[in-house]
Amino acid sequence: MTSVQQDRSGAPRVDDLGWARLDLERAARTGDPEVVYGQGKTPSQVVATLRRLHQHHPERQVLATRVDDAGREAVRTCLPGAVVDDQARTVVLGPLPPATGRVLVLAAGTADGPVAAEAATTVAVHGAEVERIDDVGVAGLHRLLAVAHRLEDADCLIVVAGMEGALPSVVGGLTGTPLVAVPTSTGYGVAEGGVTALHAMLSSCAPGVVVVNVDNGYGAGVHAARVARAAARARQPV
Amino acid sequence: MTSVQQDRSGAPRVDDLGWARLDLERAARTGDPEVVYGQGKTPSQVVATLRRLHQHHPERQVLATRVDDAGREAVRTCLPGAVVDDQARTVVLGPLPPATGRVLVLAAGTADGPVAAEAATTVAVHGAEVERIDDVGVAGLHRLLAVAHRLEDADCLIVVAGMEGALPSVVGGLTGTPLVAVPTSTGYGVAEGGVTALHAMLSSCAPGVVVVNVDNGYGAGVHAARVARAAARARQPV
Amino acid sequence: MTSVQQDRSGAPRVDDLGWARLDLERAARTGDPEVVYGQGKTPSQVVATLRRLHQHHPERQVLATRVDDAGREAVRTCLPGAVVDDQARTVVLGPLPPATGRVLVLAAGTADGPVAAEAATTVAVHGAEVERIDDVGVAGLHRLLAVAHRLEDADCLIVVAGMEGALPSVVGGLTGTPLVAVPTSTGYGVAEGGVTALHAMLSSCAPGVVVVNVDNGYGAGVHAARVARAAARARQPV
Amino acid sequence: MTSVQQDRSGAPRVDDLGWARLDLERAARTGDPEVVYGQGKTPSQVVATLRRLHQHHPERQVLATRVDDAGREAVRTCLPGAVVDDQARTVVLGPLPPATGRVLVLAAGTADGPVAAEAATTVAVHGAEVERIDDVGVAGLHRLLAVAHRLEDADCLIVVAGMEGALPSVVGGLTGTPLVAVPTSTGYGVAEGGVTALHAMLSSCAPGVVVVNVDNGYGAGVHAARVARAAARARQPV
Amino acid sequence: MTSVQQDRSGAPRVDDLGWARLDLERAARTGDPEVVYGQGKTPSQVVATLRRLHQHHPERQVLATRVDDAGREAVRTCLPGAVVDDQARTVVLGPLPPATGRVLVLAAGTADGPVAAEAATTVAVHGAEVERIDDVGVAGLHRLLAVAHRLEDADCLIVVAGMEGALPSVVGGLTGTPLVAVPTSTGYGVAEGGVTALHAMLSSCAPGVVVVNVDNGYGAGVHAARVARAAARARQPV
Amino acid sequence: MTSVQQDRSGAPRVDDLGWARLDLERAARTGDPEVVYGQGKTPSQVVATLRRLHQHHPERQVLATRVDDAGREAVRTCLPGAVVDDQARTVVLGPLPPATGRVLVLAAGTADGPVAAEAATTVAVHGAEVERIDDVGVAGLHRLLAVAHRLEDADCLIVVAGMEGALPSVVGGLTGTPLVAVPTSTGYGVAEGGVTALHAMLSSCAPGVVVVNVDNGYGAGVHAARVARAAARARQPV
Amino acid sequence: MTSVQQDRSGAPRVDDLGWARLDLERAARTGDPEVVYGQGKTPSQVVATLRRLHQHHPERQVLATRVDDAGREAVRTCLPGAVVDDQARTVVLGPLPPATGRVLVLAAGTADGPVAAEAATTVAVHGAEVERIDDVGVAGLHRLLAVAHRLEDADCLIVVAGMEGALPSVVGGLTGTPLVAVPTSTGYGVAEGGVTALHAMLSSCAPGVVVVNVDNGYGAGVHAARVARAAARARQPV
Amino acid sequence: MTSVQQDRSGAPRVDDLGWARLDLERAARTGDPEVVYGQGKTPSQVVATLRRLHQHHPERQVLATRVDDAGREAVRTCLPGAVVDDQARTVVLGPLPPATGRVLVLAAGTADGPVAAEAATTVAVHGAEVERIDDVGVAGLHRLLAVAHRLEDADCLIVVAGMEGALPSVVGGLTGTPLVAVPTSTGYGVAEGGVTALHAMLSSCAPGVVVVNVDNGYGAGVHAARVARAAARARQPV
Repeated sequence: MTSVQQDRSGAPRVDDLGWARLDLERAARTGDPEVVYGQGKTPSQVVATLRRLHQHHPERQVLATRVDDAGREAVRTCLPGAVVDDQARTVVLGPLPPATGRVLVLAAGTADGPVAAEAATTVAVHGAEVERIDDVGVAGLHRLLAVAHRLEDADCLIVVAGMEGALPSVVGGLTGTPLVAVPTSTGYGVAEGGVTALHAMLSSCAPGVVVVNVDNGYGAGVHAARVARAAARARQPV
Repeated sequence: MTSVQQDRSGAPRVDDLGWARLDLERAARTGDPEVVYGQGKTPSQVVATLRRLHQHHPERQVLATRVDDAGREAVRTCLPGAVVDDQARTVVLGPLPPATGRVLVLAAGTADGPVAAEAATTVAVHGAEVERIDDVGVAGLHRLLAVAHRLEDADCLIVVAGMEGALPSVVGGLTGTPLVAVPTSTGYGVAEGGVTALHAMLSSCAPGVVVVNVDNGYGAGVHAARVARAAARARQPV
Repeated sequence: MTSVQQDRSGAPRVDDLGWARLDLERAARTGDPEVVYGQGKTPSQVVATLRRLHQHHPERQVLATRVDDAGREAVRTCLPGAVVDDQARTVVLGPLPPATGRVLVLAAGTADGPVAAEAATTVAVHGAEVERIDDVGVAGLHRLLAVAHRLEDADCLIVVAGMEGALPSVVGGLTGTPLVAVPTSTGYGVAEGGVTALHAMLSSCAPGVVVVNVDNGYGAGVHAARVARAAARARQPV
Repeated sequence: MTSVQQDRSGAPRVDDLGWARLDLERAARTGDPEVVYGQGKTPSQVVATLRRLHQHHPERQVLATRVDDAGREAVRTCLPGAVVDDQARTVVLGPLPPATGRVLVLAAGTADGPVAAEAATTVAVHGAEVERIDDVGVAGLHRLLAVAHRLEDADCLIVVAGMEGALPSVVGGLTGTPLVAVPTSTGYGVAEGGVTALHAMLSSCAPGVVVVNVDNGYGAGVHAARVARAAARARQPV
Repeated sequence: MTSVQQDRSGAPRVDDLGWARLDLERAARTGDPEVVYGQGKTPSQVVATLRRLHQHHPERQVLATRVDDAGREAVRTCLPGAVVDDQARTVVLGPLPPATGRVLVLAAGTADGPVAAEAATTVAVHGAEVERIDDVGVAGLHRLLAVAHRLEDADCLIVVAGMEGALPSVVGGLTGTPLVAVPTSTGYGVAEGGVTALHAMLSSCAPGVVVVNVDNGYGAGVHAARVARAAARARQPV
Repeated sequence: MTSVQQDRSGAPRVDDLGWARLDLERAARTGDPEVVYGQGKTPSQVVATLRRLHQHHPERQVLATRVDDAGREAVRTCLPGAVVDDQARTVVLGPLPPATGRVLVLAAGTADGPVAAEAATTVAVHGAEVERIDDVGVAGLHRLLAVAHRLEDADCLIVVAGMEGALPSVVGGLTGTPLVAVPTSTGYGVAEGGVTALHAMLSSCAPGVVVVNVDNGYGAGVHAARVARAAARARQPV
Repeated sequence: MTSVQQDRSGAPRVDDLGWARLDLERAARTGDPEVVYGQGKTPSQVVATLRRLHQHHPERQVLATRVDDAGREAVRTCLPGAVVDDQARTVVLGPLPPATGRVLVLAAGTADGPVAAEAATTVAVHGAEVERIDDVGVAGLHRLLAVAHRLEDADCLIVVAGMEGALPSVVGGLTGTPLVAVPTSTGYGVAEGGVTALHAMLSSCAPGVVVVNVDNGYGAGVHAARVARAAARARQPV
Repeated sequence: MTSVQQDRSGAPRVDDLGWARLDLERAARTGDPEVVYGQGKTPSQVVATLRRLHQHHPERQVLATRVDDAGREAVRTCLPGAVVDDQARTVVLGPLPPATGRVLVLAAGTADGPVAAEAATTVAVHGAEVERIDDVGVAGLHRLLAVAHRLEDADCLIVVAGMEGALPSVVGGLTGTPLVAVPTSTGYGVAEGGVTALHAMLSSCAPGVVVVNVDNGYGAGVHAARVARAAARARQPV
């Protein structure tokens, strides 16, 4: 059996670690930082990937998501400069970029906290300011109404909810700010896995609600940061 | 082939129409009126069944649900005393029972109207007073908040919604009145068929929300009328 | 990244524990006690939440549901006054409220016992009297028929069943008492997860059967207690 | 493109009609009569197939199932000796075989009638005596209990039900007679298509319930007739 | 909270163990032995239930199915007279009944062995003779054809297969012997859980194939034994 | 039965047409125009609703989506000033708003045209400039690569695809422009209904892809126009 | 709204019909002929597309699949030289290519004929010789065994089956010839739509079975023709 | 209970290990080597089966797939001559066959590596040359385009991808080489289990894409090797 590596002539510069070939010019191509998808990687792979990406681009942040307990422990030991968030299961290495634009992350319940945290960290790493408001689920509407006036201050909203996933519909009816909904895998029975929340959000009667996969705080963060960065340039002095 | 009819010795009194054996003592057993499930019945079967039940019990109402266009047309021709509701697709024959207790039916959107109408008619036939408030979907929350003070006046709530099915969660957070949620088959894509609304309502974060099958306004109406009748006896002068 | 807490001006009184903001006026708003959803909470979070809610309202009960083994062990150690039910996986703290109205909980098989127990405890905490009859599954019909005369004594029925979920249909044909069906996640193969029982109950040919999510004894208990309390007030001398 | 017909050397005797190659020795192989599956066949194909099978074996019955309106009309015109059943959508041609053994077909509701009729006709064609008892759904249990003593008289039971499909569980708890359950596609919402009834029957808590596909009265009839024929030989004088 | 036990006046004789009320007259009612469903029971519950049933009816067998490793270990220790089958995960206590009628159990692959074993044990306990033929999957057709002549010797066939579940269709085309198909949860990807095999068997193009739930060797065994016992009595001299 | 209309004291100004209560201040609240959801409305209802909304706000556009053939015919007859798009099934009434920001709509195949057209019309009505590029499906990659340089010119992308829904992943890897993916209900077999495309897009390996419901060109258009308008203000001279 | 067509500089030669841009160099790129996917196209679009493709490449065949009744009627009228197959719903225009390699198409039942015909036509148009053997379903195994010796003569097999989809497993066990399985949408109940046959084929216990979408005779034909052409070149004298 | 082994008169030569009967003439029948499906086998069973097959046919390779950690450890200890691949979870024993024809295995991401490795090993064992190109997912299209010229060099392609499964569509549009797509179970939420990738690949807009079950690298390898072997004979000197 012959094992042949990819012919890379003409391709963008990459760095081959054996188990992964790092794309070192993503920021140039899309304006986004490098990101390590931690799921399925060993602790040493997470550490090595983060270290290598940081060496290539010490001037900007590198993000790792879905890093499990062992991986975060290894990062704490080997990369003392890294910022590890146990709730979000994220690791960040390198200097925080300047924040352009504002993203507001709302979460329905305490169980939605980890996904909201992943979203918030992703937003910050992708160069936008982020604020979080937790525990504003629709079953206690007064909590949401008390902060309704703040929805207009943001350039993009991320709304995180599990179970029946109703929060994005209510928020989407209160404001015209761009809104990304994130279903979470909380709940049990027919809610299990978050698919009910996902399908409910996709069926929202509020106009303009866009949705990402279950528990995908990262994806919502990338989109929201891009929207906020673009919108914020409008408010800056020229 | 031998065709043998059921031995009815000892069984309650029934009336055999050939295509159906009518249960004439249901009211005595459960306190509810006779009901004809119109789906799959020919117009003449609907008419004959209603007529026969009315003959047996002229003193109380008989209800037919899910009666299609041809069936309602036949009823209008053959049973001039019947009350036909084209939105609810129901037919009612006989005198309205006295109303005991109050049920409030809320519907999220205009597309939910037929199911709300079936629920409301069922409540009235089953002996409770009924009020309807339409078009209070969560994407325009001010419409719901404007009527929030009325939720406490009812003995039972029926909340009808399609698409993402969020309305019962919001209403259920505003009041402790018993609440039955009815998903409807409005919407398209992943909402299609009402299963998303159904599963969302079953996953509601509001406590005590109970649910019926998609488009089952009848079932919600039966339960709500029973609850309201029992509760209302408490308020009557003894 | 800026982390901003919810602006609470004008909102009901809450108590912020860091990981949760407690809603201390729910009883005033809905007539129901405070409830802690134990799933996903650490033992110390369960203990702290129960303790704080009890401090705020020592005069009434606080309920915690879905408390896992470690959580119940912690409660036994730290809150010696609490009543811990290992079958129901519930914890109750504070004085039992006076019982108003009667709820009867029927369960089809021994595997449905934990859900029936959660329902029964919830009913009691929410202020209604509760009785349980176990092991009356439809495959041994004589067991159910032997207790059929008791169905009318209750103000509301909770019927718990897994596998094919047939019991609510049979009970619903015997009585006009309001009936909440609870599917359980017993069974295997196509019954797995309880979705078949859930969908069967929603498709019941008995009129007026309302349903809650799989294994949601709590939700059924809240609804049944509300119904029973209201009905019982009707019977009291004015 | 070359079109080549199957090489039949060594294969059983067949008769090639162009659109179908008839298996003329099935009865010898399995003891069952020839059957035409009418779905998807044109009226003239149904007529021609029945006629040809009847010519080959005038001494025994031929059965066609799922024959649509046009097909049955064509049969009435072209094959005046045929017995056409509009409810069962079946056609039978040739002399009725002697009946050996007894099959009892129970149906829950009137909407289940067509499937019960297909099952009953299939049983008769396959050589067993058949009786039908309709409208014994579990929501009116007294109707079933009134005929319970007859369950033991049969060599095999066919139990037909739609919606929640509870009837086989109740019947299966009353008797040890072999029982085949047939789910039907009645109902709406989450019952739609009969899959809920099917999965409920497969999850039955009654021991020994075996199941066929949705609306497959034919399959149940074949199995039941085989069981009854074998069992009945025991009672015949030797 | 009041806990009330079931009123048993008029009901069959039962024995209450606290966690289960044993039905001691099932054999009289249905001709089948007592069976303990081991899933979800603790080892001591399994032992106690078997012992009690055996005490009541020492003259006939008691069967326990789905007994896990710990349960079987406990039975070996506490009930030395019991026959424990580790492949079938069954326990049998008491004298083997005389065998009446013959059941043949065919299994497609080695992974289907445990389900075939459960079926075979169930047949024997329910009073029929049983034979097994393993490893006759359709991908090596010569293995099945070599034993085809034996299919006619049985009074009932049980055909066990996972993955695509094709074996019952092939066997059902070779013989008219009554056939019960059992899907198993072998396979992966879209076969996972056995639902594909189950649905394939229900859609079989062979007439008269009846099916039980995934991995339900017990249910197939009960039905097959009943069929075989009845057929065998027909062959006995009168 | 008492029918009570919603108490509107304190609520925003509405206009009650009998079958719908029009929300006349949505533009003030969210910056978006009024929109009529045509599905399920009669032709006369569509005409009347458009006319009334146009009378209230003659200075801005009103959009109707999912208007069926009869509805569009009625609009052509009764509202000669309306712009009717048969591919998009949309109707627009009133003056086009000034365009702020640019949205690019890419569609994979000709069958995706109607959804792309609905999205494009929605974008224009919501105040952004829109361009369409059709027939750039991934199976002919050269067609997409030929226009890749244009992806950066847009403020937001809408990518429409059915079948396997791969186009958003490929486009999302080529650019950092915000991207909304729209699955369409093209295809057959396991693609049917568009759910496969929807789930594929939600599972995209390209970062930041957000998704709307199947065939929901309208929802994608609302979100994209909001994003583009905000971004465009950033480029304007202050 | 600006509508902009795709910039085609540098892209392969295309021909823009307004509703579709024809890829005229597909044969050069992949060796396959042009194909028109007829579903969703109007009769005049089908005719125009076929005519244009034929004009560009009169020396080779053009294929249209899934052409409905009206489309085929229009082709018969407007393109008298076209070969129209009503069973396969295909249209072929232009001279048949020389056949290289042999494909054998086996179909389980008569209802699978249309899909087998589409596959066979596709094979021929893609340059391989094709033979068909129909009605060799597994429930009458002797029919398949009678032709088993012919399986080795082919370079690639296409095996078409609906319902339980068992035929590919049986054929795949008899031969090592490359085999493509095609599930069809025949059957009802849990077989409906062909998904059960599809999943069964994907779960086949026979090694090396590859599968296409439900009813996708075209896709199977393309793959099989490619395989057969390559294999046949190997047998030709060099 | 009588346990009877299969009558093997007339059947091919087999070797009975007790837990499996080895088919020793598969290579003669299909041209493929013997393969051990390791899933569900104990380590000693894996070792014994490999050893026995190797003894029977020392001149050719034996392959074991899906061998878990303990099984591979046992093989390393007991069969020092075996080649164990921890990524592919395969074991190979015996001399490598001569390679005929070339298969190219492309994988979208690093998480798809194990399935690609299983496919590659299977190809080699089945007698074709194999090359691998990893990490060419569609979100970084330049990586795929850089190797596009190599697609034509292969006789068959295996394309492995998880998540949205888009890679086969893109590759299938670039070349006419026969292509087998393999979905993998990578991803989360609605991608979980690989079913979304599977259904997306089956719905591919690229013609001629054939698919195997989730994670079934083995099945793809068998088919691809057969195709490549047949095609390659054309290029060999005669």
